[in-house]
Amino acid sequence: MKSKALFYHAGCPVCVDAEQKVAAALDPQRFDVEIVHLGEAKERVAEAESAGVKSVPALVMDGAAYHINFGADLAVLK
Amino acid sequence: MKSKALFYHAGCPVCVDAEQKVAAALDPQRFDVEIVHLGEAKERVAEAESAGVKSVPALVMDGAAYHINFGADLAVLK
Repeated sequence: MKSKALFYHAGCPVCVDAEQKVAAALDPQRFDVEIVHLGEAKERVAEAESAGVKSVPALVMDGAAYHINFGADLAVLK
Repeated sequence: MKSKALFYHAGCPVCVDAEQKVAAALDPQRFDVEIVHLGEAKERVAEAESAGVKSVPALVMDGAAYHINFGADLAVLK
């Protein structure tokens, strides 16, 4: 069974780069990657926050948040 | 041809977790991942720094640095 990996971003240049390089590099045999644009899906900000996401871009795997560089604070997306 | 991905760390808990989750999740069909412990290979700190690494853990792909959460500043490893 594949694991779910969530990539949260806000469309910023740092986010797009991390999506194209890191999120796209995950093994498709083992991970289903869902890309979530928090600027467009504000109703999912709370979900990201409860997974420990403090800023975007961030990857959530197995319930743990991995912040990749820094694009924007989650607070500005609320 | 596979791309090279370099994962720089310093053995810290944040580093080990990022290695086990993010570096290990990269697609082995597309990436050769080299794990570099900068605490043990101090001669490679300059190489990491010139790729733009400011802190560990960090992943360098296609010459760009992706800092994953924050374990330690590169300065303390010099």
